[in-house]
Amino acid sequence: MPFILSHDPARRPRLLVINPNATEAFTESIRNTLNADVELDFYTAPAAHAPPCIEGVTDMILSAAACLVELRAHVDKWDGFVVACFSGHPLVQALRELSTAPVVSILEASLLMGSSLGSRVGILTTSPRWEPLLERDIAAMGLSKKNSAGIVSSGLAVLDLEELPRSSVIKVLCTAAADVLQDRRGADVIILGCAGMVGLEAAIADSCQLGLVVLDPVRCGLELCLSLMRMGAKTSKVGIYAPA
Amino acid sequence: MPFILSHDPARRPRLLVINPNATEAFTESIRNTLNADVELDFYTAPAAHAPPCIEGVTDMILSAAACLVELRAHVDKWDGFVVACFSGHPLVQALRELSTAPVVSILEASLLMGSSLGSRVGILTTSPRWEPLLERDIAAMGLSKKNSAGIVSSGLAVLDLEELPRSSVIKVLCTAAADVLQDRRGADVIILGCAGMVGLEAAIADSCQLGLVVLDPVRCGLELCLSLMRMGAKTSKVGIYAPA
Amino acid sequence: MPFILSHDPARRPRLLVINPNATEAFTESIRNTLNADVELDFYTAPAAHAPPCIEGVTDMILSAAACLVELRAHVDKWDGFVVACFSGHPLVQALRELSTAPVVSILEASLLMGSSLGSRVGILTTSPRWEPLLERDIAAMGLSKKNSAGIVSSGLAVLDLEELPRSSVIKVLCTAAADVLQDRRGADVIILGCAGMVGLEAAIADSCQLGLVVLDPVRCGLELCLSLMRMGAKTSKVGIYAPA
Amino acid sequence: MPFILSHDPARRPRLLVINPNATEAFTESIRNTLNADVELDFYTAPAAHAPPCIEGVTDMILSAAACLVELRAHVDKWDGFVVACFSGHPLVQALRELSTAPVVSILEASLLMGSSLGSRVGILTTSPRWEPLLERDIAAMGLSKKNSAGIVSSGLAVLDLEELPRSSVIKVLCTAAADVLQDRRGADVIILGCAGMVGLEAAIADSCQLGLVVLDPVRCGLELCLSLMRMGAKTSKVGIYAPA
Amino acid sequence: MPFILSHDPARRPRLLVINPNATEAFTESIRNTLNADVELDFYTAPAAHAPPCIEGVTDMILSAAACLVELRAHVDKWDGFVVACFSGHPLVQALRELSTAPVVSILEASLLMGSSLGSRVGILTTSPRWEPLLERDIAAMGLSKKNSAGIVSSGLAVLDLEELPRSSVIKVLCTAAADVLQDRRGADVIILGCAGMVGLEAAIADSCQLGLVVLDPVRCGLELCLSLMRMGAKTSKVGIYAPA
Amino acid sequence: MPFILSHDPARRPRLLVINPNATEAFTESIRNTLNADVELDFYTAPAAHAPPCIEGVTDMILSAAACLVELRAHVDKWDGFVVACFSGHPLVQALRELSTAPVVSILEASLLMGSSLGSRVGILTTSPRWEPLLERDIAAMGLSKKNSAGIVSSGLAVLDLEELPRSSVIKVLCTAAADVLQDRRGADVIILGCAGMVGLEAAIADSCQLGLVVLDPVRCGLELCLSLMRMGAKTSKVGIYAPA
Repeated sequence: MPFILSHDPARRPRLLVINPNATEAFTESIRNTLNADVELDFYTAPAAHAPPCIEGVTDMILSAAACLVELRAHVDKWDGFVVACFSGHPLVQALRELSTAPVVSILEASLLMGSSLGSRVGILTTSPRWEPLLERDIAAMGLSKKNSAGIVSSGLAVLDLEELPRSSVIKVLCTAAADVLQDRRGADVIILGCAGMVGLEAAIADSCQLGLVVLDPVRCGLELCLSLMRMGAKTSKVGIYAPA
Repeated sequence: MPFILSHDPARRPRLLVINPNATEAFTESIRNTLNADVELDFYTAPAAHAPPCIEGVTDMILSAAACLVELRAHVDKWDGFVVACFSGHPLVQALRELSTAPVVSILEASLLMGSSLGSRVGILTTSPRWEPLLERDIAAMGLSKKNSAGIVSSGLAVLDLEELPRSSVIKVLCTAAADVLQDRRGADVIILGCAGMVGLEAAIADSCQLGLVVLDPVRCGLELCLSLMRMGAKTSKVGIYAPA
Repeated sequence: MPFILSHDPARRPRLLVINPNATEAFTESIRNTLNADVELDFYTAPAAHAPPCIEGVTDMILSAAACLVELRAHVDKWDGFVVACFSGHPLVQALRELSTAPVVSILEASLLMGSSLGSRVGILTTSPRWEPLLERDIAAMGLSKKNSAGIVSSGLAVLDLEELPRSSVIKVLCTAAADVLQDRRGADVIILGCAGMVGLEAAIADSCQLGLVVLDPVRCGLELCLSLMRMGAKTSKVGIYAPA
Repeated sequence: MPFILSHDPARRPRLLVINPNATEAFTESIRNTLNADVELDFYTAPAAHAPPCIEGVTDMILSAAACLVELRAHVDKWDGFVVACFSGHPLVQALRELSTAPVVSILEASLLMGSSLGSRVGILTTSPRWEPLLERDIAAMGLSKKNSAGIVSSGLAVLDLEELPRSSVIKVLCTAAADVLQDRRGADVIILGCAGMVGLEAAIADSCQLGLVVLDPVRCGLELCLSLMRMGAKTSKVGIYAPA
Repeated sequence: MPFILSHDPARRPRLLVINPNATEAFTESIRNTLNADVELDFYTAPAAHAPPCIEGVTDMILSAAACLVELRAHVDKWDGFVVACFSGHPLVQALRELSTAPVVSILEASLLMGSSLGSRVGILTTSPRWEPLLERDIAAMGLSKKNSAGIVSSGLAVLDLEELPRSSVIKVLCTAAADVLQDRRGADVIILGCAGMVGLEAAIADSCQLGLVVLDPVRCGLELCLSLMRMGAKTSKVGIYAPA
Repeated sequence: MPFILSHDPARRPRLLVINPNATEAFTESIRNTLNADVELDFYTAPAAHAPPCIEGVTDMILSAAACLVELRAHVDKWDGFVVACFSGHPLVQALRELSTAPVVSILEASLLMGSSLGSRVGILTTSPRWEPLLERDIAAMGLSKKNSAGIVSSGLAVLDLEELPRSSVIKVLCTAAADVLQDRRGADVIILGCAGMVGLEAAIADSCQLGLVVLDPVRCGLELCLSLMRMGAKTSKVGIYAPA
């Protein structure tokens, strides 16, 4: 299925996956789980200006600005963008203003895909603070009804995911998934709401009832972006994303 | 990007596009616009029991039942389904109950994709009756906020699309798209809400402001289904789609 | 209070209560609890095509189609219809398309009546799967705010209601009603969301706080339909229910 | 169909229709259009304390207080109440606190009944001020989705309805109904939102497309109340309407 | 910052705080906690017609009518009004109809202010009946999203607040605040929803996590009203509050 | 009314008004219209990193980052902040994360205040692109119901406001206010949604019906912040604004 891209039919389509924090290791773990039949580029925000991880709106602003300063002159190089932060990261809207290529949020993509696979999508997150943050961002996207099993914090910090023994991490996450999201909230689809959980889909699915679906949002984002690219879909330039 | 499908890794993945009405010509025109790197099958509802086109809930029930009677014993043959009726056709939910493969609604898929390309998605439909019908179905999907430019009837009947001179058809549709959806409703993305409009994307885009996005929902549905298949995503079996 | 029906003033008004599943015993138990000062007819879906009970959308489609095939040529015989399935059964919309007589859903009627008797209406249902199914159907009706105490599954299957000892059944239902709906959810009105619970209103009310209201939805549906008939109210034919 | 009322099976059921303003003529015109197979009583608020018509919240408070002072010691005399003011009149909630009998609002009843007869219910009102007033009251009832064609002012004051020549009144109302509610708003059901319009249903229906439904809300309220009475339904006493 | 009031620049601005129940002691406790750089007047509803405390809609109507009868001829004396009842008391709307000065509801003001200080505002109330009452009133104000931690009853009656030993009262309130609102509901801002709790802000804040915000709604109402007065803001007279 | 601020009772309270774009002239015009009985400081974003005006999310990110880099080490100097950009500027949330002082958005403040003065608040903005931008931001704040008369673009660019003859500017704005917001949308309160409109309140009010309210959002923001400061209110530190 050949890509038909307007600006240069000879060029192989390129997609940029953006890790908007400054931690290369996160980018690497994402890179290791993804593949596609397009040119895949990966970008990490510059450590000089972006925070090592995103813990709130201040971090979102600083990381988005750091990315924009570096990327804005080069957006024409890519035919699609995935912003790999599980939040309403403002870089998504900014890139839509700057580029005609499709720009995908992994939060939005996973909610949309998850809600076509079940009726009660739940999100497993890290620290408790992410519960109100995600709730607000999902409401701002008009997608609260697509997250009817809500957001559950595992209580683990992002660093815990890497520093604690793997078995302890899995135990804590599985308990939150199975006891809270599945049993108490009635989730039939669970989205792993943190890059640090990549690779744990199978373990978490095993702890839940057979048939429950567990989704990796970065994969969802990549696949949705590839779909939009294959369709030749562009970001609209006559409304909210019109050139200034 | 090889498919890894649980039941038979050797088999090439298969996707079934279902036209739930009994008009073969519609299926043909869909077939002619689609292609994919999977085995694509096309199905038309049986003329003995299904109506020639879908004009309301009675038609939806009869067409869904006709499809189910023929398909329900064979759902295991496919790894993904697209229901190619621009409505909240009940066959989508029914297939999700019967199969573990992903099942995609072209209405849902196009709204989700369109809303990542702009902020005011509008729908161009045929007869006025589809305005309240689509409004109700979109509300039932929890997606009203993703259709903020609303639904606009062109006044043309489905048959008009085929029987009137092509230039007249295009003129009427372009007027509804440009004058009503774009100018009065502020749409920045327009979805062509009827299979009979397939192939008119370019003409309609030309009548609107440069940069406005026009989408073919069948193409959206196919691409979203392919994404879900490539991810190995399954329909959840522990909630609303649990086996009876 | 004489009925003034347009088509034939001499004829006594007739109302059809439709049990859209194929189990005659359910129809009988409904018949035994109802009476009215009009001609009451009762209809059971044909066993050859309709399922014995409704457990999801597949069942709804097949049962609706079975009823439509038999009834559509004869809808003029009745002056009102009650669809006696506690769900968003699509037969309701279909009959509104086919007839000018009022068509009442027992789910819609009981929510509307219940919400004029209290402020937190809750629903007691059978298997857990009905929780998301009813939630979706009630949202599609635009009535989620009228069901603020939510839907609670008793865990009993429909067959359990008939096969287990009566005292066990009552005990389980009363626990769900009193402990979950009344105490935890704060319900002040409880709707018995399954035909198999007919006749248990008093027992369940006795297990709850004095003054809590328990409603039989079939009775609600019948009474609302009679009201509409007495008013001479017709289904509108200029919008969503216009003739095709 | 005999009434089975708890307190006194021998007594014939009694229903009180309350006109909460002080104008006897309004009560009379209501009385002339209603009949029922129960004892129907009619009440007009006392002219000493209640306003002659209801034009806002100040009027609602004063009229409700005037009625409560007279009625509260006697509520046990009736088995059902209809508050015949087309608004969110607070007397409805107050009577539900004071009585165990059902209490019906004509605004709520007509919206509920109308929305089972079509999908876009519109309201025709008098002065422009009623547009935001009704909008707020309907939102407070959680019924905004049941009034999707909105509220349209005819521009006529209540007194105009009685003082202008009948033909002029009908002409103005028909224009608002046909041009604004039907054509521009797509209403398929129209509720006459003022007691002064009683008796004009046929004239207004004639000015609209054949098949559009026009409803008299007082009649709706009476019929819904009769339904609740026949069911033996009580106002719940364990939640918002619990005794103080 | 001098007030520039239209009707009389020489006069010092006056603000009326209205206690719409008939208990002087409540007015006194409010008076003792408030101060402002304007003339502050305090009003208590007349005991002959208003109830000693507000426990529902009947009480609201009677207290509002009692206040209106006394105040309506004199509203020009004040440049701002605060209705000090933690509810959707109808006197607020009535005064807006009668005066051009701003009129503030302490429920509305505290929700608005609280929601700019945190993201999950919760309300601590007295008897369980206030839970559905406040829920309905907040929904009617269009502010449900600003009360996402909900309303929690302490189980204490208003009189308990004065008659039980202070230490017991504090213990019960702190438990409801810390265990239910903070821990289970995730509130980060708590509003004390009853005049009888005035003065307990510090004790309740001490029982919760450091950094959680506790608000006195009467103080919120006063400050918002002062802001509006300083701005010279008037109640609009062209819409819902137009003169009759 | 003395301020009681925790950290230093001797110090006079200080409030910082932040103009997050880099145009000093805007800051000056704001400074000229405001006064208060606290120490008022004014801040303009640095021209090296912030855009001269805010035209979308890219501008918001860059301006917010520029402000944060300069201000974050000094937030303890102020007891309150007003972010003077009529949008959902992310600096508001970021400052709430960094400071315990109250932080006020002029968009949020003006909607809240406006909705206590009327029932249909409308916003007059500059270029058409702000319509969907503000719509999204207001929805994200959960305040769509407080903006029921919507957002209307005057068609003028921000620079037009300064460069065109004053009389032309006023004429265009008055037409949009009177013809569109007042007449077609039924607004009873109009908020001037752009700093460039400061000082035009009277002219615009004159063009509308007597009694309609016109609000300057910067003034609203200042007054709300002063209220919160006087109450000693703090930003909550246990939820969404908890320290990282």
